[in-house]
Amino acid sequence: MRDLDDARDALRQFVTERDWEQFHAPKNLAMALCVEAAELMEHFQWLTEAESAALPPDTLAEVADEIADVQLYLIGLADRLGVDILDAMSRKMEKNARKYPVASARGNARKYDRLPGYDGTPTS
Amino acid sequence: MRDLDDARDALRQFVTERDWEQFHAPKNLAMALCVEAAELMEHFQWLTEAESAALPPDTLAEVADEIADVQLYLIGLADRLGVDILDAMSRKMEKNARKYPVASARGNARKYDRLPGYDGTPTS
Amino acid sequence: MRDLDDARDALRQFVTERDWEQFHAPKNLAMALCVEAAELMEHFQWLTEAESAALPPDTLAEVADEIADVQLYLIGLADRLGVDILDAMSRKMEKNARKYPVASARGNARKYDRLPGYDGTPTS
Amino acid sequence: MRDLDDARDALRQFVTERDWEQFHAPKNLAMALCVEAAELMEHFQWLTEAESAALPPDTLAEVADEIADVQLYLIGLADRLGVDILDAMSRKMEKNARKYPVASARGNARKYDRLPGYDGTPTS
Repeated sequence: MRDLDDARDALRQFVTERDWEQFHAPKNLAMALCVEAAELMEHFQWLTEAESAALPPDTLAEVADEIADVQLYLIGLADRLGVDILDAMSRKMEKNARKYPVASARGNARKYDRLPGYDGTPTS
Repeated sequence: MRDLDDARDALRQFVTERDWEQFHAPKNLAMALCVEAAELMEHFQWLTEAESAALPPDTLAEVADEIADVQLYLIGLADRLGVDILDAMSRKMEKNARKYPVASARGNARKYDRLPGYDGTPTS
Repeated sequence: MRDLDDARDALRQFVTERDWEQFHAPKNLAMALCVEAAELMEHFQWLTEAESAALPPDTLAEVADEIADVQLYLIGLADRLGVDILDAMSRKMEKNARKYPVASARGNARKYDRLPGYDGTPTS
Repeated sequence: MRDLDDARDALRQFVTERDWEQFHAPKNLAMALCVEAAELMEHFQWLTEAESAALPPDTLAEVADEIADVQLYLIGLADRLGVDILDAMSRKMEKNARKYPVASARGNARKYDRLPGYDGTPTS
Protein backbone atom coordinates (compact mmCIF):
# COMPACT_ATOMS: atom_id res chain seq x y z
CA MET A 1 0.00 0.00 0.00
CA ARG A 2 1.82 3.07 -1.22
CA ASP A 3 -0.69 5.87 -0.85
CA LEU A 4 -4.27 6.89 -0.04
CA ASP A 5 -5.46 5.88 -3.52
CA ASP A 6 -4.10 2.38 -3.02
CA ALA A 7 -5.86 2.16 0.32
CA ARG A 8 -9.13 3.38 -1.19
CA ASP A 9 -8.93 0.76 -3.93
CA ALA A 10 -8.17 -2.04 -1.47
CA LEU A 11 -11.03 -0.89 0.74
CA ARG A 12 -13.47 -0.76 -2.16
CA GLN A 13 -12.59 -4.33 -3.05
CA PHE A 14 -12.91 -5.48 0.58
CA VAL A 15 -16.36 -3.92 0.88
CA THR A 16 -17.61 -5.15 -2.49
CA GLU A 17 -16.50 -8.72 -1.84
CA ARG A 18 -18.55 -8.73 1.36
CA ASP A 19 -21.55 -6.95 -0.16
CA TRP A 20 -21.32 -4.29 2.51
CA GLU A 21 -22.11 -1.22 0.35
CA GLN A 22 -25.70 -1.54 1.56
CA PHE A 23 -24.60 -0.62 5.12
CA HIS A 24 -22.20 2.13 4.12
CA ALA A 25 -24.39 5.20 3.88
CA PRO A 26 -22.26 8.26 4.73
CA LYS A 27 -24.30 8.65 7.92
CA ASN A 28 -23.32 5.16 9.07
CA LEU A 29 -19.67 5.57 8.07
CA ALA A 30 -19.51 8.83 10.02
CA MET A 31 -20.81 6.96 13.07
CA ALA A 32 -18.29 4.15 12.62
CA LEU A 33 -15.49 6.69 12.25
CA CYS A 34 -16.52 8.36 15.49
CA VAL A 35 -16.68 5.01 17.30
CA GLU A 36 -13.17 4.13 16.12
CA ALA A 37 -11.84 7.55 17.14
CA ALA A 38 -13.26 6.92 20.62
CA GLU A 39 -11.66 3.47 20.77
CA LEU A 40 -8.36 5.08 19.87
CA MET A 41 -8.83 7.69 22.59
CA GLU A 42 -9.79 5.07 25.15
CA HIS A 43 -6.17 3.91 25.30
CA PHE A 44 -5.19 7.34 26.63
CA GLN A 45 -7.97 8.18 29.06
CA TRP A 46 -6.29 7.23 32.31
CA LEU A 47 -2.73 8.09 31.25
CA THR A 48 -0.91 11.28 32.06
CA GLU A 49 0.20 13.36 29.10
CA ALA A 50 3.77 12.16 29.69
CA GLU A 51 2.70 8.51 29.78
CA SER A 52 0.76 9.01 26.55
CA ALA A 53 4.03 9.97 24.84
CA ALA A 54 5.83 6.83 26.01
CA LEU A 55 3.50 3.91 25.33
CA PRO A 56 4.70 0.37 25.96
CA PRO A 57 5.11 -1.60 22.70
CA ASP A 58 1.97 -3.72 23.06
CA THR A 59 -0.20 -0.66 23.68
CA LEU A 60 1.45 1.14 20.78
CA ALA A 61 0.61 -1.79 18.49
CA GLU A 62 -3.05 -1.64 19.59
CA VAL A 63 -3.07 2.12 19.08
CA ALA A 64 -1.61 1.67 15.57
CA ASP A 65 -4.50 -0.69 14.79
CA GLU A 66 -7.01 1.92 15.93
CA ILE A 67 -5.27 4.61 13.88
CA ALA A 68 -5.65 2.32 10.88
CA ASP A 69 -9.35 1.83 11.62
CA VAL A 70 -9.95 5.58 11.79
CA GLN A 71 -8.00 6.08 8.56
CA LEU A 72 -9.90 3.33 6.76
CA TYR A 73 -13.34 4.69 7.69
CA LEU A 74 -12.22 8.21 6.79
CA ILE A 75 -11.11 7.01 3.35
CA GLY A 76 -14.36 5.09 2.91
CA LEU A 77 -16.48 8.08 3.91
CA ALA A 78 -14.58 10.51 1.70
CA ASP A 79 -14.85 8.05 -1.18
CA ARG A 80 -18.62 7.72 -0.77
CA LEU A 81 -18.97 11.52 -0.70
CA GLY A 82 -16.59 12.18 -3.59
CA VAL A 83 -14.25 14.23 -1.38
CA ASP A 84 -10.54 14.28 -2.24
CA ILE A 85 -8.80 14.13 1.14
CA LEU A 86 -5.50 15.69 0.07
CA ASP A 87 -7.32 18.53 -1.63
CA ALA A 88 -9.55 19.08 1.41
CA MET A 89 -6.48 19.19 3.65
CA SER A 90 -4.75 21.76 1.46
CA ARG A 91 -7.76 24.07 1.60
CA LYS A 92 -8.22 23.57 5.34
CA MET A 93 -4.60 24.32 6.11
CA GLU A 94 -4.91 27.60 4.21
CA LYS A 95 -7.99 28.46 6.25
CA ASN A 96 -6.21 27.50 9.45
CA ALA A 97 -3.27 29.74 8.56
CA ARG A 98 -5.73 32.65 8.33
CA LYS A 99 -7.63 31.67 11.48
CA TYR A 100 -4.53 31.23 13.59
CA PRO A 101 -2.02 33.90 12.58
CA VAL A 102 1.43 33.15 13.97
CA ALA A 103 1.62 36.49 15.77
CA SER A 104 -1.47 35.99 17.93
CA ALA A 105 -1.64 32.18 18.15
CA ARG A 106 1.97 31.63 19.12
CA GLY A 107 2.21 29.69 22.37
CA ASN A 108 -1.46 29.64 23.23
CA ALA A 109 -4.17 27.11 22.51
CA ARG A 110 -7.23 29.31 22.64
CA LYS A 111 -9.83 28.78 19.98
CA TYR A 112 -9.45 31.22 17.09
CA ASP A 113 -12.47 33.28 18.06
CA ARG A 114 -10.89 34.04 21.42
CA LEU A 115 -7.56 35.15 20.02
CA PRO A 116 -6.62 38.80 20.41
CA GLY A 117 -7.44 40.69 17.23
CA TYR A 118 -10.21 38.38 16.07
CA ASP A 119 -12.69 40.45 14.08
CA GLY A 120 -15.77 38.31 14.41
CA THR A 121 -15.77 36.84 10.92
CA PRO A 122 -16.97 33.25 11.06
CA THR A 123 -14.57 31.27 8.90
CA SER A 124 -15.84 27.80 9.82
CA MET B 1 0.06 18.52 -1.18
CA ARG B 2 0.69 15.24 -2.97
CA ASP B 3 0.63 12.66 -0.19
CA LEU B 4 0.49 11.96 3.54
CA ASP B 5 4.19 12.76 3.97
CA ASP B 6 3.65 16.19 2.44
CA ALA B 7 0.74 16.79 4.78
CA ARG B 8 2.79 15.67 7.78
CA ASP B 9 5.60 18.05 6.87
CA ALA B 10 3.22 20.98 6.37
CA LEU B 11 1.54 20.19 9.68
CA ARG B 12 4.85 19.99 11.54
CA GLN B 13 5.79 23.42 10.23
CA PHE B 14 2.37 24.86 11.14
CA VAL B 15 2.65 23.57 14.69
CA THR B 16 6.28 24.60 15.18
CA GLU B 17 5.66 28.15 13.93
CA ARG B 18 2.92 28.53 16.56
CA ASP B 19 4.90 26.84 19.34
CA TRP B 20 2.05 24.37 19.83
CA GLU B 21 4.10 21.21 20.43
CA GLN B 22 3.65 21.85 24.16
CA PHE B 23 -0.09 21.15 23.82
CA HIS B 24 0.24 18.18 21.50
CA ALA B 25 0.69 15.25 23.84
CA PRO B 26 -0.77 12.14 22.16
CA LYS B 27 -3.51 12.14 24.79
CA ASN B 28 -4.60 15.62 23.77
CA LEU B 29 -4.35 14.92 20.05
CA ALA B 30 -6.51 11.81 20.51
CA MET B 31 -9.12 14.00 22.22
CA ALA B 32 -8.99 16.60 19.45
CA LEU B 33 -9.34 13.86 16.83
CA CYS B 34 -12.42 12.53 18.59
CA VAL B 35 -13.93 16.01 18.82
CA GLU B 36 -13.42 16.56 15.09
CA ALA B 37 -14.89 13.15 14.26
CA ALA B 38 -17.98 14.15 16.26
CA GLU B 39 -18.21 17.50 14.46
CA LEU B 40 -18.07 15.61 11.18
CA MET B 41 -20.81 13.24 12.35
CA GLU B 42 -22.97 16.12 13.58
CA HIS B 43 -23.74 17.05 9.97
CA PHE B 44 -25.46 13.68 9.53
CA GLN B 45 -27.35 13.23 12.78
CA TRP B 46 -30.82 14.31 11.67
CA LEU B 47 -30.50 13.15 8.06
CA THR B 48 -31.87 9.92 6.69
CA GLU B 49 -29.32 7.54 5.19
CA ALA B 50 -30.52 8.54 1.73
CA GLU B 51 -30.16 12.26 2.51
CA SER B 52 -26.65 11.62 3.84
CA ALA B 53 -25.68 10.33 0.39
CA ALA B 54 -26.97 13.42 -1.40
CA LEU B 55 -25.67 16.42 0.53
CA PRO B 56 -26.28 19.92 -0.81
CA PRO B 57 -23.04 21.60 -2.00
CA ASP B 58 -22.65 23.94 0.98
CA THR B 59 -23.02 21.08 3.46
CA LEU B 60 -20.63 18.96 1.44
CA ALA B 61 -18.05 21.75 1.61
CA GLU B 62 -18.41 21.92 5.40
CA VAL B 63 -18.14 18.14 5.61
CA ALA B 64 -14.98 18.21 3.49
CA ASP B 65 -13.50 20.69 5.98
CA GLU B 66 -14.29 18.34 8.86
CA ILE B 67 -12.80 15.39 6.97
CA ALA B 68 -9.64 17.45 6.60
CA ASP B 69 -9.62 18.24 10.33
CA VAL B 70 -9.89 14.56 11.23
CA GLN B 71 -7.15 13.68 8.75
CA LEU B 72 -4.85 16.40 10.06
CA TYR B 73 -5.16 15.34 13.70
CA LEU B 74 -4.74 11.70 12.71
CA ILE B 75 -1.51 12.55 10.88
CA GLY B 76 -0.32 14.63 13.82
CA LEU B 77 -1.08 11.88 16.33
CA ALA B 78 0.55 9.16 14.23
CA ASP B 79 3.59 11.39 13.76
CA ARG B 80 3.94 12.00 17.50
CA LEU B 81 3.69 8.26 18.16
CA GLY B 82 6.02 7.22 15.34
CA VAL B 83 3.26 5.21 13.64
CA ASP B 84 3.37 4.85 9.84
CA ILE B 85 -0.27 5.17 8.77
CA LEU B 86 0.05 3.30 5.46
CA ASP B 87 1.89 0.45 7.13
CA ALA B 88 -0.70 0.30 9.94
CA MET B 89 -3.51 0.16 7.37
CA SER B 90 -1.85 -2.69 5.47
CA ARG B 91 -1.55 -4.78 8.62
CA LYS B 92 -5.09 -3.96 9.74
CA MET B 93 -6.60 -4.88 6.40
CA GLU B 94 -4.89 -8.26 6.60
CA LYS B 95 -6.34 -8.76 10.08
CA ASN B 96 -9.76 -7.68 8.86
CA ALA B 97 -9.61 -10.17 6.00
CA ARG B 98 -9.08 -12.92 8.58
CA LYS B 99 -11.73 -11.57 10.97
CA TYR B 100 -14.37 -11.16 8.30
CA PRO B 101 -14.06 -14.07 5.87
CA VAL B 102 -16.04 -13.42 2.70
CA ALA B 103 -18.06 -16.62 3.12
CA SER B 104 -19.51 -15.75 6.53
CA ALA B 105 -19.45 -11.94 6.42
CA ARG B 106 -21.08 -11.55 3.04
CA GLY B 107 -24.17 -9.40 3.26
CA ASN B 108 -24.29 -9.02 7.02
CA ALA B 109 -22.91 -6.39 9.33
CA ARG B 110 -22.52 -8.37 12.50
CA LYS B 111 -19.37 -7.92 14.49
CA TYR B 112 -16.77 -10.56 13.77
CA ASP B 113 -17.28 -12.40 17.05
CA ARG B 114 -20.92 -12.95 16.19
CA LEU B 115 -20.29 -14.34 12.74
CA PRO B 116 -21.13 -18.00 12.16
CA GLY B 117 -17.98 -20.09 12.45
CA TYR B 118 -16.13 -17.71 14.77
CA ASP B 119 -13.83 -19.82 16.90
CA GLY B 120 -13.37 -17.54 19.86
CA THR B 121 -9.88 -16.34 19.07
CA PRO B 122 -9.52 -12.72 20.07
CA THR B 123 -7.73 -11.02 17.18
CA SER B 124 -8.15 -7.46 18.40
CA MET C 1 -31.18 3.81 44.10
CA ARG C 2 -33.97 6.37 44.15
CA ASP C 3 -32.45 9.45 42.54
CA LEU C 4 -29.35 11.16 41.19
CA ASP C 5 -28.13 12.01 44.70
CA ASP C 6 -28.27 8.33 45.67
CA ALA C 7 -26.31 7.43 42.57
CA ARG C 8 -23.73 10.11 43.29
CA ASP C 9 -23.25 8.85 46.83
CA ALA C 10 -22.90 5.22 45.70
CA LEU C 11 -20.43 6.28 43.04
CA ARG C 12 -18.35 8.30 45.48
CA GLN C 13 -18.08 5.28 47.74
CA PHE C 14 -17.17 2.99 44.85
CA VAL C 15 -14.39 5.32 43.73
CA THR C 16 -13.06 5.95 47.22
CA GLU C 17 -12.91 2.25 48.09
CA ARG C 18 -10.77 1.66 45.00
CA ASP C 19 -8.60 4.74 45.54
CA TRP C 20 -9.49 5.95 42.05
CA GLU C 21 -9.87 9.68 42.79
CA GLN C 22 -6.30 10.08 41.56
CA PHE C 23 -7.41 9.14 38.01
CA HIS C 24 -10.61 11.16 38.03
CA ALA C 25 -9.54 14.59 36.91
CA PRO C 26 -12.47 16.23 35.09
CA LYS C 27 -10.45 15.99 31.86
CA ASN C 28 -10.21 12.22 32.21
CA LEU C 29 -13.83 11.79 33.22
CA ALA C 30 -14.91 13.80 30.17
CA MET C 31 -12.88 11.42 28.00
CA ALA C 32 -14.38 8.35 29.67
CA LEU C 33 -17.87 9.81 29.22
CA CYS C 34 -17.22 10.32 25.52
CA VAL C 35 -15.88 6.77 25.15
CA GLU C 36 -19.00 5.35 26.80
CA ALA C 37 -21.27 7.49 24.62
CA ALA C 38 -19.50 6.05 21.57
CA GLU C 39 -19.88 2.50 22.88
CA LEU C 40 -23.58 3.19 23.31
CA MET C 41 -23.80 4.54 19.76
CA GLU C 42 -21.88 1.59 18.35
CA HIS C 43 -24.92 -0.62 18.91
CA PHE C 44 -26.87 1.52 16.42
CA GLN C 45 -24.35 2.18 13.67
CA TRP C 46 -25.42 -0.45 11.14
CA LEU C 47 -29.11 -0.41 12.04
CA THR C 48 -31.81 1.45 10.18
CA GLU C 49 -33.72 4.04 12.18
CA ALA C 50 -36.67 1.63 12.33
CA GLU C 51 -34.48 -1.22 13.59
CA SER C 52 -33.02 1.09 16.23
CA ALA C 53 -36.53 1.54 17.66
CA ALA C 54 -37.16 -2.22 17.92
CA LEU C 55 -34.06 -3.73 19.51
CA PRO C 56 -34.03 -7.42 20.40
CA PRO C 57 -34.00 -8.00 24.19
CA ASP C 58 -30.31 -8.96 24.45
CA THR C 59 -29.21 -5.86 22.54
CA LEU C 60 -31.53 -3.72 24.64
CA ALA C 61 -29.94 -5.10 27.81
CA GLU C 62 -26.48 -4.21 26.51
CA VAL C 63 -27.69 -0.76 25.52
CA ALA C 64 -29.16 -0.26 29.01
CA ASP C 65 -25.73 -1.07 30.45
CA GLU C 66 -24.13 1.55 28.23
CA ILE C 67 -26.77 4.10 29.19
CA ALA C 68 -25.87 3.41 32.81
CA ASP C 69 -22.16 3.89 32.07
CA VAL C 70 -22.79 7.26 30.43
CA GLN C 71 -25.01 8.31 33.34
CA LEU C 72 -22.44 7.24 35.93
CA TYR C 73 -19.58 9.15 34.33
CA LEU C 74 -21.81 12.18 33.86
CA ILE C 75 -22.70 12.12 37.56
CA GLY C 76 -19.05 11.68 38.49
CA LEU C 77 -17.93 14.55 36.28
CA ALA C 78 -20.66 16.90 37.50
CA ASP C 79 -19.80 15.98 41.09
CA ARG C 80 -16.10 16.74 40.59
CA LEU C 81 -16.99 20.10 39.02
CA GLY C 82 -19.63 21.03 41.59
CA VAL C 83 -22.35 21.20 38.92
CA ASP C 84 -25.94 20.40 39.92
CA ILE C 85 -27.30 18.40 37.00
CA LEU C 86 -30.99 19.11 37.60
CA ASP C 87 -30.29 22.81 37.94
CA ALA C 88 -28.16 22.81 34.79
CA MET C 89 -30.96 21.05 32.88
CA SER C 90 -33.56 23.59 34.02
CA ARG C 91 -31.45 26.48 32.79
CA LYS C 92 -30.60 24.76 29.53
CA MET C 93 -34.23 23.95 28.76
CA GLU C 94 -35.10 27.60 29.24
CA LYS C 95 -32.32 28.55 26.81
CA ASN C 96 -33.49 25.92 24.35
CA ALA C 97 -37.03 27.26 24.50
CA ARG C 98 -35.66 30.66 23.44
CA LYS C 99 -33.35 29.19 20.78
CA TYR C 100 -35.99 27.00 19.23
CA PRO C 101 -39.29 28.90 19.29
CA VAL C 102 -42.20 26.61 18.54
CA ALA C 103 -43.34 28.73 15.60
CA SER C 104 -40.10 28.45 13.62
CA ALA C 105 -38.72 25.14 14.87
CA ARG C 106 -41.89 23.13 14.43
CA GLY C 107 -41.29 20.13 12.21
CA ASN C 108 -37.74 20.93 11.18
CA ALA C 109 -34.41 19.86 12.63
CA ARG C 110 -32.23 22.71 11.50
CA LYS C 111 -29.77 24.12 13.97
CA TYR C 112 -31.09 27.23 15.72
CA ASP C 113 -28.84 29.60 13.82
CA ARG C 114 -30.38 28.43 10.57
CA LEU C 115 -33.96 28.85 11.67
CA PRO C 116 -36.00 31.55 9.96
CA GLY C 117 -36.06 34.66 12.10
CA TYR C 118 -32.78 33.99 13.89
CA ASP C 119 -31.27 37.36 14.76
CA GLY C 120 -27.63 36.39 15.05
CA THR C 121 -27.40 36.46 18.84
CA PRO C 122 -25.08 33.71 20.00
CA THR C 123 -26.83 32.08 22.91
CA SER C 124 -24.48 29.14 23.32
CA MET D 1 -37.26 20.27 38.03
CA ARG D 2 -36.93 17.89 40.97
CA ASP D 3 -35.85 14.63 39.41
CA LEU D 4 -35.24 12.61 36.25
CA ASP D 5 -38.95 11.96 35.78
CA ASP D 6 -39.67 15.70 35.83
CA ALA D 7 -36.94 16.23 33.26
CA ARG D 8 -38.31 13.45 31.06
CA ASP D 9 -41.79 14.96 31.16
CA ALA D 10 -40.53 18.44 30.34
CA LEU D 11 -38.46 17.03 27.49
CA ARG D 12 -41.41 15.08 26.07
CA GLN D 13 -43.46 18.25 26.01
CA PHE D 14 -40.65 20.23 24.40
CA VAL D 15 -40.25 17.65 21.64
CA THR D 16 -43.98 17.21 21.05
CA GLU D 17 -44.61 20.95 20.79
CA ARG D 18 -41.97 21.14 18.04
CA ASP D 19 -43.11 17.96 16.26
CA TRP D 20 -39.60 16.56 16.57
CA GLU D 21 -40.49 12.93 17.37
CA GLN D 22 -40.03 12.19 13.68
CA PHE D 23 -36.28 12.92 14.00
CA HIS D 24 -35.81 11.14 17.32
CA ALA D 25 -35.14 7.56 16.31
CA PRO D 26 -32.89 5.98 18.96
CA LYS D 27 -30.10 5.83 16.37
CA ASN D 28 -30.26 9.60 15.88
CA LEU D 29 -30.51 10.35 19.60
CA ALA D 30 -27.45 8.17 20.23
CA MET D 31 -25.57 10.24 17.64
CA ALA D 32 -26.70 13.51 19.20
CA LEU D 33 -25.68 12.26 22.63
CA CYS D 34 -22.22 11.42 21.33
CA VAL D 35 -21.88 14.83 19.67
CA GLU D 36 -22.80 16.58 22.92
CA ALA D 37 -20.36 14.42 24.91
CA ALA D 38 -17.63 15.50 22.48
CA GLU D 39 -18.61 19.17 22.83
CA LEU D 40 -18.35 18.75 26.59
CA MET D 41 -14.93 17.14 26.23
CA GLU D 42 -13.72 19.84 23.85
CA HIS D 43 -13.53 22.28 26.76
CA PHE D 44 -10.86 20.09 28.35
CA GLN D 45 -8.71 19.03 25.42
CA TRP D 46 -5.86 21.52 25.77
CA LEU D 47 -6.03 21.81 29.57
CA THR D 48 -3.79 19.98 32.00
CA GLU D 49 -5.54 17.69 34.46
CA ALA D 50 -4.96 20.30 37.17
CA GLU D 51 -6.43 23.08 35.05
CA SER D 52 -9.46 20.90 34.32
CA ALA D 53 -10.20 20.80 38.04
CA ALA D 54 -10.08 24.58 38.41
CA LEU D 55 -12.15 26.02 35.55
CA PRO D 56 -12.77 29.76 35.40
CA PRO D 57 -16.45 30.64 36.04
CA ASP D 58 -17.37 31.36 32.41
CA THR D 59 -15.93 28.05 31.22
CA LEU D 60 -17.67 26.24 34.06
CA ALA D 61 -20.98 27.77 33.00
CA GLU D 62 -20.43 26.56 29.43
CA VAL D 63 -19.46 23.12 30.71
CA ALA D 64 -22.63 23.00 32.84
CA ASP D 65 -24.65 23.70 29.69
CA GLU D 66 -22.96 20.81 27.90
CA ILE D 67 -23.54 18.51 30.88
CA ALA D 68 -27.22 19.44 30.64
CA ASP D 69 -27.25 18.66 26.90
CA VAL D 70 -25.74 15.21 27.47
CA GLN D 71 -28.22 14.54 30.27
CA LEU D 72 -31.18 15.64 28.18
CA TYR D 73 -30.29 13.43 25.22
CA LEU D 74 -29.61 10.52 27.56
CA ILE D 75 -33.05 10.94 29.12
CA GLY D 76 -34.65 11.21 25.70
CA LEU D 77 -32.87 8.11 24.40
CA ALA D 78 -33.70 6.05 27.49
CA ASP D 79 -37.32 7.19 27.26
CA ARG D 80 -37.60 6.15 23.61
CA LEU D 81 -36.11 2.75 24.44
CA GLY D 82 -38.16 2.20 27.59
CA VAL D 83 -35.03 2.00 29.76
CA ASP D 84 -35.26 3.11 33.39
CA ILE D 85 -32.01 4.97 34.01
CA LEU D 86 -31.92 4.52 37.80
CA ASP D 87 -32.64 0.83 37.47
CA ALA D 88 -29.96 0.44 34.78
CA MET D 89 -27.44 2.22 37.03
CA SER D 90 -28.22 -0.05 39.98
CA ARG D 91 -27.62 -3.17 37.91
CA LYS D 92 -24.47 -1.75 36.33
CA MET D 93 -22.97 -0.77 39.66
CA GLU D 94 -23.48 -4.34 40.89
CA LYS D 95 -21.71 -5.65 37.80
CA ASN D 96 -18.92 -3.13 38.27
CA ALA D 97 -18.45 -4.23 41.87
CA ARG D 98 -17.89 -7.79 40.60
CA LYS D 99 -15.67 -6.69 37.71
CA TYR D 100 -13.49 -4.46 39.84
CA PRO D 101 -13.01 -6.13 43.24
CA VAL D 102 -11.56 -3.72 45.77
CA ALA D 103 -8.60 -6.01 46.49
CA SER D 104 -7.28 -6.10 42.94
CA ALA D 105 -8.56 -2.80 41.54
CA ARG D 106 -7.37 -0.63 44.40
CA GLY D 107 -5.12 2.16 43.15
CA ASN D 108 -4.87 1.05 39.55
CA ALA D 109 -6.87 2.00 36.48
CA ARG D 110 -6.37 -1.06 34.35
CA LYS D 111 -9.37 -2.44 32.54
CA TYR D 112 -11.01 -5.31 34.40
CA ASP D 113 -9.75 -7.97 32.02
CA ARG D 114 -6.18 -6.98 32.80
CA LEU D 115 -6.58 -7.08 36.55
CA PRO D 116 -4.67 -9.75 38.44
CA GLY D 117 -6.94 -12.67 39.16
CA TYR D 118 -9.29 -12.11 36.23
CA ASP D 119 -10.65 -15.50 35.19
CA GLY D 120 -11.59 -14.75 31.63
CA THR D 121 -15.35 -14.57 32.14
CA PRO D 122 -16.78 -11.91 29.87
CA THR D 123 -19.19 -9.90 32.01
CA SER D 124 -19.86 -7.12 29.49
